[in-house]
Amino acid sequence: MHLFTSIFIQKPDHVAEIEGSVTAPQGFRAAGIAAGIKKSGKPDLGLLVSDAPCASATMYTPNAAAAPPVRVCQQEIDNHAIQALVVNSGFANACTGTQGFVDARTMITQTAAATGIAPERVGVSSTGVIGQLLPMGVIEPGIATAAGKLSETGGSDFAAAIRTTDTVDKEGAVAVSLAGGRVTIGACAKGAGMIAPNMATTLIFITTDAAVAAPLLNEMLSAAVAGSFNAISVDGDMSTNDCVFVLANGASGVNVEAGSDDAARFGAALSAVCKSLALKMVEDGEGATKVVELNLNGAADAGEAARVSQAIANSPLVKTAFFGRDANWGRIMASAGAALAGEPELLADIYYEDVCLALSGAAAPAAPAAERLREIMSQPEIAVNVDLHRGAATHTMYFSDLGHDYISLNAEYTT
Amino acid sequence: MHLFTSIFIQKPDHVAEIEGSVTAPQGFRAAGIAAGIKKSGKPDLGLLVSDAPCASATMYTPNAAAAPPVRVCQQEIDNHAIQALVVNSGFANACTGTQGFVDARTMITQTAAATGIAPERVGVSSTGVIGQLLPMGVIEPGIATAAGKLSETGGSDFAAAIRTTDTVDKEGAVAVSLAGGRVTIGACAKGAGMIAPNMATTLIFITTDAAVAAPLLNEMLSAAVAGSFNAISVDGDMSTNDCVFVLANGASGVNVEAGSDDAARFGAALSAVCKSLALKMVEDGEGATKVVELNLNGAADAGEAARVSQAIANSPLVKTAFFGRDANWGRIMASAGAALAGEPELLADIYYEDVCLALSGAAAPAAPAAERLREIMSQPEIAVNVDLHRGAATHTMYFSDLGHDYISLNAEYTT
Repeated sequence: MHLFTSIFIQKPDHVAEIEGSVTAPQGFRAAGIAAGIKKSGKPDLGLLVSDAPCASATMYTPNAAAAPPVRVCQQEIDNHAIQALVVNSGFANACTGTQGFVDARTMITQTAAATGIAPERVGVSSTGVIGQLLPMGVIEPGIATAAGKLSETGGSDFAAAIRTTDTVDKEGAVAVSLAGGRVTIGACAKGAGMIAPNMATTLIFITTDAAVAAPLLNEMLSAAVAGSFNAISVDGDMSTNDCVFVLANGASGVNVEAGSDDAARFGAALSAVCKSLALKMVEDGEGATKVVELNLNGAADAGEAARVSQAIANSPLVKTAFFGRDANWGRIMASAGAALAGEPELLADIYYEDVCLALSGAAAPAAPAAERLREIMSQPEIAVNVDLHRGAATHTMYFSDLGHDYISLNAEYTT
Repeated sequence: MHLFTSIFIQKPDHVAEIEGSVTAPQGFRAAGIAAGIKKSGKPDLGLLVSDAPCASATMYTPNAAAAPPVRVCQQEIDNHAIQALVVNSGFANACTGTQGFVDARTMITQTAAATGIAPERVGVSSTGVIGQLLPMGVIEPGIATAAGKLSETGGSDFAAAIRTTDTVDKEGAVAVSLAGGRVTIGACAKGAGMIAPNMATTLIFITTDAAVAAPLLNEMLSAAVAGSFNAISVDGDMSTNDCVFVLANGASGVNVEAGSDDAARFGAALSAVCKSLALKMVEDGEGATKVVELNLNGAADAGEAARVSQAIANSPLVKTAFFGRDANWGRIMASAGAALAGEPELLADIYYEDVCLALSGAAAPAAPAAERLREIMSQPEIAVNVDLHRGAATHTMYFSDLGHDYISLNAEYTT
């Protein structure tokens, strides 16, 4: 598994890809098993623990229908010192009422009992079908079984256990060269479908053996998420279960101090890892055949830049045109115009890669070479540049196209 | 063609469906021809005129990339006295820059010359592909040809000429019994795909032989559009070319005075006609197999009610679930929660028809009868009731499901 496969990301020089995922950093163990939650018999329960106490950083979905595991994590555990995580796929434990809270807490206490880690240091998350209770009868023995299988090579098993409609694992690890020595970052993610700004149905687990205090870790995570998980769109929906966990156990003995050069280098590495995972999610979006990088320039302010970008990235008409390899820039203009309803006439420029398709709101005077346009539209990754000519604010987003497999998957993924 | 075919609309008692469409009211003539704008040879140019001067009301898309014909109508004609309309399909004359404005004005002046009606009383509209110039070489002779074919039975030809991806004509006429006598309303519409709140890619033409002053007509039109064309969603996109025209020529000799009982009766008839056309648009949404009536109750305020309704109605996950006949209410809860990001825990109730699926944010305690649920999900029209329990504001919307044909149509409908 390679992290830096997209043309839309440059790996920083001080970052080197290495084997492994969340168990690549020293002092982490993981396991993933088929506990019987999914009828298919596929892996569905994962544990991840650090042997030593951790500093941690977290982010959760702002969805008002956020699932009980999200709310329990937000309200009842120590988000700055999470040392173990228990995760299931198959059922989201969302819209499950009081029993959902009881079940999320039970998953925490069972994990605490099985690992010897204090319950307030155990995080829980779930993904899958909404509105049905978790099958606790298989989850509870499953946690004990998984705890018995925790190992320093269990990262990939853990990653496999968090999948739902994902078609590939999203995991990897990097070595980061700092002044104080070498540290490792490992990561895995789940996400396909329902992926939209604000981390919709994305579960992300990141580990590091660097020593980073929780406030600095949170700051770095916020920056990393803004340019990665919050900058992608598959279908514009935002999930009830999104979360990101970063655990730093300091096992490398290398300290990352706020304000230091090493903090900048570590932060850049964390951002690069998050962006790589986010691009893999878009690439693996349900039914997706393409990843589009939308560079929006010339917005009046940052809010407008984000709003217009999201309107374009979420437009079914724009997405289906990319699926059909049709350079239908008019749909981009129309989506931007819709997001700017009531504003003065939109005189935007639109480029697909280096080819100018629209200038000042109208078709480019020189028709682009049909051959070059066909070449661009058949690329798996396409850069689209839009200049609104309304100001200086910019925003970049990544989105997938919309094809038949999205319909098939989502019409048949049943309650 | 019958207007009142949906279970979601009750025909007022003083309204009777009659034969015909925009030429059913006295004193209107229309024509629709194949001018050669569309390569397919299908009808693509329509004219509609009143023999006598009219009072008129109009509404146009607020899209910032609104097409030149929309801008020319908004800025250069007398919107309270439109007496003739020229419409083409095939090309939207959108994102066409200066030449687009020249072409829209030429369509007006040619129509004025061919009909003897002053150019400031001629409206123009276009629908079709964005970003390409109109083929004026065929449009200009086409207008003269169409003018020669204007007739009191030309309403259906006109309706046929405004279609793009529509699969059925959307037209009809009603007789309205007023205290002062009987008046007639005729109407036709174009709309499928890109249909979203704010009248996206909907062209609507309404005629009446009632005598209604322009200010009252505008007031009635605003009310009618709010409950019809602005309450529907096929794919959430908003077009560059939407417009509604209502022409009242008074040929019946029946006066509708502001504040009178007849004004209320005429307004109700106009609203019913608009709602019928809007429901037909949803029914004919690209690839649609179902129409869902979403009754959202218990929102904190009107803005929230509209925002949450639109989030649900536009959610690809919600739409694909209906396509798959899957009563996946969790996706409705998740979409509502996403629209209410940051708000307190959402404890909504969700009913499909009379069946309770969720109570207070969680699955209903009594599982619904599977047989009854299957029956509901196979209906062509399904009522969904959501209560947010946050306040007293309500909003109703109509949306289609999202199926394979939408992808096929929009991936292949080429620039």
